[in-house]
Amino acid sequence: MSELKGACIIGQSGGPSSVINASAYGVIRTALDNGSITQVLGAEHGIKGVLNDRLFDMGLEDPAELELLKYTPSSALGSCRYKIADPDVDDTDYKRILEVFKKHNVRYFFYNGGNDSMDTCNKISKYMMKVGYECRVMGVPKTIDNDLFGTDHCPGFSSAAKYIATSCMEVYQDARVYDTGMVVVMEIMGRHAGWLTAAAALASNAGAGPDLIYVPEVDFDMDKFIADVKRVYAERGNCMVAVSEGIHYADGSFVSEAKTSATDGFGHAQLGGLAAMLADIVKRETGAKVRGIELSLLQRCGAHLASRTDYEESFMAGQAAVENAVAGLTDKMVGFECTREGGKYVCKTKLFDLKDVANTEKKLPLEWINADHNGITQGFIDYCLPLIQGETEMKKVDSLPRFARLKKILAK
Amino acid sequence: MSELKGACIIGQSGGPSSVINASAYGVIRTALDNGSITQVLGAEHGIKGVLNDRLFDMGLEDPAELELLKYTPSSALGSCRYKIADPDVDDTDYKRILEVFKKHNVRYFFYNGGNDSMDTCNKISKYMMKVGYECRVMGVPKTIDNDLFGTDHCPGFSSAAKYIATSCMEVYQDARVYDTGMVVVMEIMGRHAGWLTAAAALASNAGAGPDLIYVPEVDFDMDKFIADVKRVYAERGNCMVAVSEGIHYADGSFVSEAKTSATDGFGHAQLGGLAAMLADIVKRETGAKVRGIELSLLQRCGAHLASRTDYEESFMAGQAAVENAVAGLTDKMVGFECTREGGKYVCKTKLFDLKDVANTEKKLPLEWINADHNGITQGFIDYCLPLIQGETEMKKVDSLPRFARLKKILAK
Repeated sequence: MSELKGACIIGQSGGPSSVINASAYGVIRTALDNGSITQVLGAEHGIKGVLNDRLFDMGLEDPAELELLKYTPSSALGSCRYKIADPDVDDTDYKRILEVFKKHNVRYFFYNGGNDSMDTCNKISKYMMKVGYECRVMGVPKTIDNDLFGTDHCPGFSSAAKYIATSCMEVYQDARVYDTGMVVVMEIMGRHAGWLTAAAALASNAGAGPDLIYVPEVDFDMDKFIADVKRVYAERGNCMVAVSEGIHYADGSFVSEAKTSATDGFGHAQLGGLAAMLADIVKRETGAKVRGIELSLLQRCGAHLASRTDYEESFMAGQAAVENAVAGLTDKMVGFECTREGGKYVCKTKLFDLKDVANTEKKLPLEWINADHNGITQGFIDYCLPLIQGETEMKKVDSLPRFARLKKILAK
Repeated sequence: MSELKGACIIGQSGGPSSVINASAYGVIRTALDNGSITQVLGAEHGIKGVLNDRLFDMGLEDPAELELLKYTPSSALGSCRYKIADPDVDDTDYKRILEVFKKHNVRYFFYNGGNDSMDTCNKISKYMMKVGYECRVMGVPKTIDNDLFGTDHCPGFSSAAKYIATSCMEVYQDARVYDTGMVVVMEIMGRHAGWLTAAAALASNAGAGPDLIYVPEVDFDMDKFIADVKRVYAERGNCMVAVSEGIHYADGSFVSEAKTSATDGFGHAQLGGLAAMLADIVKRETGAKVRGIELSLLQRCGAHLASRTDYEESFMAGQAAVENAVAGLTDKMVGFECTREGGKYVCKTKLFDLKDVANTEKKLPLEWINADHNGITQGFIDYCLPLIQGETEMKKVDSLPRFARLKKILAK
């Protein structure tokens, strides 16, 4: 494969994570240091920044600030949720992207995101091949949801898992302090996959976590849930529950969106989410003191509690994307292949075809959900525990985070 | 003052904090090492443990486990919210306490809590003096609310403040990642005092925090709030708001409890708290994407993010309680006297009369609230920043917290 000289673009897309910028930094740092790449451009708000020709010259940034990206949560370049059209139906966007690529002599395109982003990558890659414009395209995965096909796990998941497990352990201590019992419902992200909610089981495994865990891979049954909580509360005097935001009834309807006639005689949807709703139902059914806690955005931006394993792997994914692209590969997503034999965890990057990854969702394996559908088995603990290891090295000033401050100078 | 030999009791009361156990450890460790104290008893669930003669022999605990109390959130001995009667009206409880004190030859009583706990302390102290039973009583302060009279600040506040500031900084990064704007409402504890909510201003001071802050020391005006948010959102494209759970209208009614006819035509109180309610109102008024986040229990048990200053001072308060009691002092609360001259922070313990502390609430000074009643001034930053300094030394196993595991063996 002959050397391909030109600029590269790095863009970020979808919901952010604690370590998505570590991946971006992996791309940026490696690309800046690579002789084949003539300019490193950061797209403002993902593919929208390409369409609008809003591209920052990353070479003009202070290297020390760039390095702080490793510990800066959320997408530093800005994100988007723009769904690109099917090029066979409407190729307007693609023509514009080609125009911008040509203007800046862009020969490398790195896109940092989840399922939809890999789809965007795949479509751009195909279009460029079709029109004969040489450009190597690499997906760099990111999703706290951990639902990307092929890869052992996704950058971002591990840090969110660590945040969830730690927070559950702390709340567990707090929620059983009085001589009267309490039922706590923790609401955790995951619309379709239960990976993040399963991470609450790491807290239980450490002796201070949920008694009951409900994930969206199996149908939710309100009567069984109430019976489960009543049983645990009667036996232990307290009960801690973790639920995925995406739990749903057998008919597929989300529990969070159900018109709960029980809670409101007029059938109004309740504000405040699933945790508050379930806590209210438990309160009426058991008379127990209750507390609904929604981890909300906190779980995906809690970089102060990031996993060192996660941010090192996230950086490694970005680095591998650049190295493989320069070596001639294209139309791939960087993923991880891991072994955990004998308790020894080894993680290596591996390339996956973008067409296989795009729009495929990987769910929590059913064998990691217990027979009662209210708990998580040891298999998941063995899978997840290595991922959360190691502490962050977040830079602080006055004991508060010092996030990266980019100049964001537009490329000429 | 002659030496007083006998057992001591340490009890914990009220809502827990990240460092209340650091104070308990300060008492326990110092008392175990003191020749005048013959036995160290931990009361199960505060004063209730005394009334029920449920007293743990702390000398039988593993010293290494006891030391882990420094980084274990929540009240390790168990807490209560038992309001003791006025002894002039009903002295049943006091007679029972005296009986238990005599049984174990208790000559030192240390009570670790907030306003109500200091009142309990004060009443017990007075009763023992009245009946001529020599027992030295010391209050060891604890409250994330920071509302105790006299002392510069309260153990527990600083760590909660650090959790709030850090979380606001991280959410700030997350909430402005898209090219479309968002309004985020952070709900922070504090029913009557705005200290904790003011701590969100530390995030703003560090360049990534709320644009607007509302505390309960001043009346809340919904129309002004909506106008404030609209203005900031129009100017900056995003808006982050921090509110105390205790904000109230001019007539004293809590905003959280208001029948919001605007949100529900049938006048039902909404579930899910204040953040969700305000976010919903903002959404209807501005059309912006909104998110309500309640920090809930997380802010008071987030020991992984504790302030080192806080847990060192909390330990010091427990230690000072024992040392002063053994030296002959009684009927006091240990507090802090601090200086911040020239940016140099010095904190020393100081004793306050229990009668002055009991049931008095210290509010956020009005000069630290801006003229518009929607922000916090530099005076508070200068006061609070020294308190959050230094990182926790929490022990971890497999990168998750390793909390103290006490044997809790009842004293004979």
